[in-house]
Formats: sequence, structure tokens, C-alpha cells
Amino acid sequence: MSIIHPVTQIRPDEFELLMKRYRDFQSLGLKLDMSRGKPESRQLDLSIPMLEMKSGFLSEDGTDTRNYGDPAGIPEARRLFGQLLGIAPEQVIVGGNSSINLLHDALTRAIINGPSKGDTPWCRIPDVRILCPVPGYDWHFEMCRTLGLTVVPVPTSETGPDMDMVERLVRDPCVKGMICNPMYANPSGITYSDQTVDRLASMKTAAADFRIFWDNAYCVHHLYPDPARRHHLKNIYDACLAAGNPDRVLMFTSTSKITFAGGGISAIGASPANICRHMELMTYQLVCYDKVNQLRHIKFLPDLAAVEAHMARQADIIRPKFEFVLARLKQELEGIASWNEPLGGYFICFRAPRGCARRIVQLCRQAGVTLTPAGSPFPGGHDPEDSVIRIAPTYPPMEELVKVMELFPLAVKIAYRESLLRP
Amino acid sequence: MSIIHPVTQIRPDEFELLMKRYRDFQSLGLKLDMSRGKPESRQLDLSIPMLEMKSGFLSEDGTDTRNYGDPAGIPEARRLFGQLLGIAPEQVIVGGNSSINLLHDALTRAIINGPSKGDTPWCRIPDVRILCPVPGYDWHFEMCRTLGLTVVPVPTSETGPDMDMVERLVRDPCVKGMICNPMYANPSGITYSDQTVDRLASMKTAAADFRIFWDNAYCVHHLYPDPARRHHLKNIYDACLAAGNPDRVLMFTSTSKITFAGGGISAIGASPANICRHMELMTYQLVCYDKVNQLRHIKFLPDLAAVEAHMARQADIIRPKFEFVLARLKQELEGIASWNEPLGGYFICFRAPRGCARRIVQLCRQAGVTLTPAGSPFPGGHDPEDSVIRIAPTYPPMEELVKVMELFPLAVKIAYRESLLRP
Repeated sequence: MSIIHPVTQIRPDEFELLMKRYRDFQSLGLKLDMSRGKPESRQLDLSIPMLEMKSGFLSEDGTDTRNYGDPAGIPEARRLFGQLLGIAPEQVIVGGNSSINLLHDALTRAIINGPSKGDTPWCRIPDVRILCPVPGYDWHFEMCRTLGLTVVPVPTSETGPDMDMVERLVRDPCVKGMICNPMYANPSGITYSDQTVDRLASMKTAAADFRIFWDNAYCVHHLYPDPARRHHLKNIYDACLAAGNPDRVLMFTSTSKITFAGGGISAIGASPANICRHMELMTYQLVCYDKVNQLRHIKFLPDLAAVEAHMARQADIIRPKFEFVLARLKQELEGIASWNEPLGGYFICFRAPRGCARRIVQLCRQAGVTLTPAGSPFPGGHDPEDSVIRIAPTYPPMEELVKVMELFPLAVKIAYRESLLRP
Repeated sequence: MSIIHPVTQIRPDEFELLMKRYRDFQSLGLKLDMSRGKPESRQLDLSIPMLEMKSGFLSEDGTDTRNYGDPAGIPEARRLFGQLLGIAPEQVIVGGNSSINLLHDALTRAIINGPSKGDTPWCRIPDVRILCPVPGYDWHFEMCRTLGLTVVPVPTSETGPDMDMVERLVRDPCVKGMICNPMYANPSGITYSDQTVDRLASMKTAAADFRIFWDNAYCVHHLYPDPARRHHLKNIYDACLAAGNPDRVLMFTSTSKITFAGGGISAIGASPANICRHMELMTYQLVCYDKVNQLRHIKFLPDLAAVEAHMARQADIIRPKFEFVLARLKQELEGIASWNEPLGGYFICFRAPRGCARRIVQLCRQAGVTLTPAGSPFPGGHDPEDSVIRIAPTYPPMEELVKVMELFPLAVKIAYRESLLRP
């Protein structure tokens, strides 16, 4: 995505017209929430058939899914996530409804027990630093903050995080890890290049227990059926293995945006040593995850081909929304702002003129539309340019999105005009 | 339960007969697992109707359970668990399928962040000690061990843990908490007396951040319909409130042994300050728990009355097994060993003649019956008397239980006879 510096001027009479239209909007009493990347109802409806499971509760290995057992997940679910993550089923643990929770658990284990047996628990180290590409996912930053880990932001380009900077930063032994969305990233929409993956896998880290928390939330979340318009992500586990660093990466994904955001299943994939470590530390954390839901998922989506066919139906629902938003941005804001044109994932990363993002979000809120807070793609909510706004087009039905995309350009133009008038 | 000292002698000719019958058993090639407190299939079948949910996905507050939202759980599930735990719905967080996982999360938060805002995180304290009544639940001990907490065992009588000892131990500021099953306890079957609850609620603890992890797993798990044969547990939250220690207790329960052991829902109930603390620390741990499963449960079991009716059907299935095991013990082992006669829960606590438990479990295993390892109701697996064996009668179908209860008394008598011959 190219950064376009605003060049367009807005004349005073135009500004008055903008303000009038904005006030008209306020009088509508809208109440729309576009703050999170949530699926809309029609997407959720696609998975209703999954809920019909009245008999056949045994997993492939003969375990009654309704009972205790199979702490690593039922074999068929481990196989499915193995396909999604590109790793052997034995190297997969299938979890509950949240991959973010699995990532959180992996962090707490590193903090309390150390990433591998014999490693110093991170809670014994005064300042543990975690690299996070920016703009990035607020949940990653806030999770680190909650757990007492210091987030070190790393700027991102089309190919992923600035790898020169990453390679420099990991020479610091306090830098213990990196958390990232490597594919159709939240919110930038970018996918890491093969070279980025290779450099992450092979770079020299001062910390022997350095871990990459590979939050691959959008691994099958393409917007276009055309293979040429899809991103491809190199398998980082293979790259780590080839580079002699098999334990470096922990890969996460879930069906939150495949089946139900509130009732899916999740997984972690990693080296045999990492999986063994997590299974050991998990043994007394819980008896097992919800295997009934695992089996329900597998009956509905038995393999990668079924997932891909299902995701094509999801894409048919959300693609028109992305295309509509992008068309409106182009129509109204070309020359004033810039944005990416994502080929997958859940977000459009909008870059307002410098110093305008907070004001735009405020103007939208005052007209009844809640956007993701400006700054949230940056640690501590601090966007040094006050420019990035994450647009999440999936949740509102199209008729609401139409209203939002009337309002949003107005808000951008008003904020921009105001910014030009500031001394 | 009274401790009966073995007085019966076994004559050499009787012993030969026992050994012959034991060897006959071995030749059967049995393969039975009685190691865990698992429901049997017929119990799980009772909840099959719960799985039919094809429409109506909104919770009472209008949240689509299939989507993100309601991190504390849907209101109707909070209300149900409020009834089960005896606390206001606003003081309940409904979790995933495992209350043990909620307990584990509460411990990790105490370790990483401190129980309340401003408390020193337990990871900064060299030796954090947790009281655990014994005989107790191995999962509690092992969870502490995994998290680096030292378990301090406290002997239990009919009324609960030895409260004189507890009150003495909590004068040590390193003693930060207690983990216990207060009702139909695993494995002792006892329920804490009102006086025990009151003393736990009101005792002076050196640690201001002392917490009782009240694992009330068997709160509605009565074996008998007659109210006179049911245990009643005093509400510890009310007692803590009355004693001016509202934040002392965190109460946990789940539907693992109500609906599905592998696919239930769980909850934590506590003071407003504790709930607020957990909600805050949970915010970036996960977006929400599985609300589809919460709603599924509520449609099936809308209130406490429905749960109690359902638990009466569960009791009808497992009560005959308990009664059969107790009858066989009485028939074969009276005078040699002792045991409790539980009125609820999942276990019979068998006390073999001193020094015999490991050998009994070994003899059973060598004849194809896996029992819970001897010693497991004690921290580190160390039963100072080598006496306690946890019998879990629920999982095997009756016909298998019949075989087990032929074998088990044989094994006890053989081990006892061997022990008498030891110098």
C-alpha cells in the first residue's frame, strides 16, 4: 500500500456542506458497531447444519467424546488442524473455542515454567520484551501488558515486519519472542513474504528460548476464488526445521471465523518437543477440551477441502462488503487518504491524513457509529502519526454499511479540513 | 468413617484358595479401567436431548451466542450457576468445559498478577504454600506442583480439614491459600460442617491475599432422593461476607458430571471485587467462552429445579453401583479394612490395612483392573500409611463392576496376608 500525502484542499463552502450533511447524519440516531472483526449473522447461519448431532459420539480412536479423555484432542480434529497449519497431526493440540486463549496459555507457561524444560521462567527475568509488528492486533499488545511483558513495536511493510530491525532487536537477550498475524494480518492485510518467513526462522537470537507466537487466524480466509488473487504463506515450521530451530515457532489457529466466533475450536501446532512440553504442563490444567464440539466440527468439516468450500461461501458473503467499502473510499477519499486493498482476512487498514485518526473516530461516534478506537493497532494505543484506522466491514449488514460509508468519508474530510486550519 | 484395625487372621489353606481364585482371574484377560471418576455411557445418554439446537441462538440480552460477546457468560447461564453456587448472577463468570481450568486460571493470575490489584504476584514470593486436605484430589496437588506452589497436606475428619491445624498454619504469611472439595469430597466423600465453613471464613490469616479455592464439583451430586440422606453445605461466600472477608473465597463448579464430562460448562463465583479482578485480567485472555454450549445447556437445564430432576436420574443409574460395591466390601472385608459410605459424589474411600494399598492396586492391575494409583490422594503420591485406595464405581457397567468386586476383596486379602508374613 502506498502512502499518499493529502494534497486536496477543501474549500470553505464545501466544508459547510460537509458539516450540514454530518449534522443530518447525527439526527438519524444511528447505533452501529464496527469496532471488532465479527462475522455477520448470514456467515454464522452457514454453520447451522453443524449443530445437528444426535448420535455417533465416538471419535476415531473409540473415545466417547462426551466423556473425559483425549487431552490433545480427538485424532480427526488433530488431523484437520494439521492440514490447516501444515504440520503432522501428532504435532497438534486441539483446544477450546479460542486460539487467543491457547496463545495466552502458552505465554503463561513460558512465564511460570519457561518455554522448555530447564529454561528460566520468564517471571524471573526483570524485563521480558516481545516484538509485535505495527500496525497490529490490539489483543496481542494488551495480553502482553496484562502478563507484564514489554511490547516492542516493529514497523511493517508489504512483506512483513522490518526484518533488519527484528534481526537487530533479537540480539538483546531480554527479547524473548514475537507475536504476529502472518497472513492477511490484522489490520494491515499483508502476508509475510517467503523471505520474511525464512529470516524469522533462521535469524540468530540471543535468547535461546526465543519463541514466535504465530497467530495464523486468517489462514484460509481468502476473499477471492481466483488462486492468483490469494496470498500464500510459507510454512514457518518447515523453515524453522530447515534452519535448525524447530522449537522456535508455536502456530495457532481456530475456526472462530470459519464456523462460530463464539463456539468454534482452536489448535496449536509446534515441534514434537514443544508439544510434549505443553502436554506435560497442560496435564493438570484441565482434563480435556470440549471434544463434543471437536467432533461436531469434524462431522461438518471433515477435511481441508470441506473447509475451503465453506470458506468460499463465507467469502461470497463478505467480499461484496469489502468491495463496496473500497469503492466508496476510492470515490470519496482518493488523494486525501490511503488504504490497502485486502485479499483476505477481516480488515481494511485505512491511513488518514496525519493527526486526523482520533478526530475521525470521534466524529463517527458522535454520529452513532462505533469504530475501533484510533491508535488501537499500536501498543498503548499510541499511533505516532495518529493516522491508522482499522475498518471492519464484515459485521454490519450491507444496508448499514451503506450508511457508514456515507458518514465515514464525511468524517475524514471534516477532520482533514480541521487539521489544515490548526496552527 | 471409623478406622477399623484389622484383626482377622487368614489361615494358610484359605490363602492357597485365595491365590487360586486370583490366578483364575488373571487367566480371564480382563481389561477394566476404574482409575478415574468418569460417568458411564447411560449417564451421558441422559443429556442427548441437549444436543438438539437448530434455531434460537440469541441469549436473553440479545447477544447472538454464535458470535463474540458476553465474556462473563450469557445472563441465563450466570443465573443458573448463581443458583448452583448460592451467589448473585452478577458475581458469576461462566467459563468453558472445565472448572479445573478456571481454578488453574485463577491460580496463574494470582501467580502472575496477584489475587487483587496491588497484591504482590505470587511468582515474586520464594515459597508460596497452599493447604490441601488429605486424602484429597490428586489434580489439586499436581496443579500446584506444576505451577511451582508447595502443597501442605492437612488431615481430614468427618467434618472437614483439621481446623486447629489450618488456623495454626495460616499464621505463616507464605501460606497463601487452600484448595479443597468441600462437598462429597474426592475421595473422602465428606462434606464440611457448618462450623468448618465458619472457621475457614473467619480465621485470621497472616497473608492478606489468602484465597480459598472452593472446588464445589459435587454440589448437586446426591446419591439419595431422601433429603435426610443428603449432605448440606453451608454457603461459604455468605460466611466470608459475614466475617468481613468477602474476597477470601473463589467458588468453582461445572456440569461435567451433570451433562457431559467432555463437553459441559463451568463457572466461578466470588465477591464483586474478585469478579471484577478476574474479568479485567481475562479481558485479553480470550474474547469469550463457548456461548453456544452455554445456551444449549440452559435450554436443557433452565434452572436449579431442572438440574435437580436431572441429577435424580443420574443418581438412579449410579446409586446401585455404589450400593453393590459397599455390600461386597461389607460381605468380604468387614474386620479387615474400613471405608466410608458416601451419600454423594463419585468415590468410595477405602482404607486397607496399613502398608497394603500399593500391593492391592498392583495385584488388581496384574489381573487387568486399573485402579487409581495408591497414594494418589496424597501430595507426591505419598500416603504415610500406604492405606487409602480411591474406588470409582461409576464408569464400568454393572456386569464389569461385578467382576471387579470379585477381584478386589481377593487382592485385599492376599496383600493383607502377605503383610502379616513380612518380618
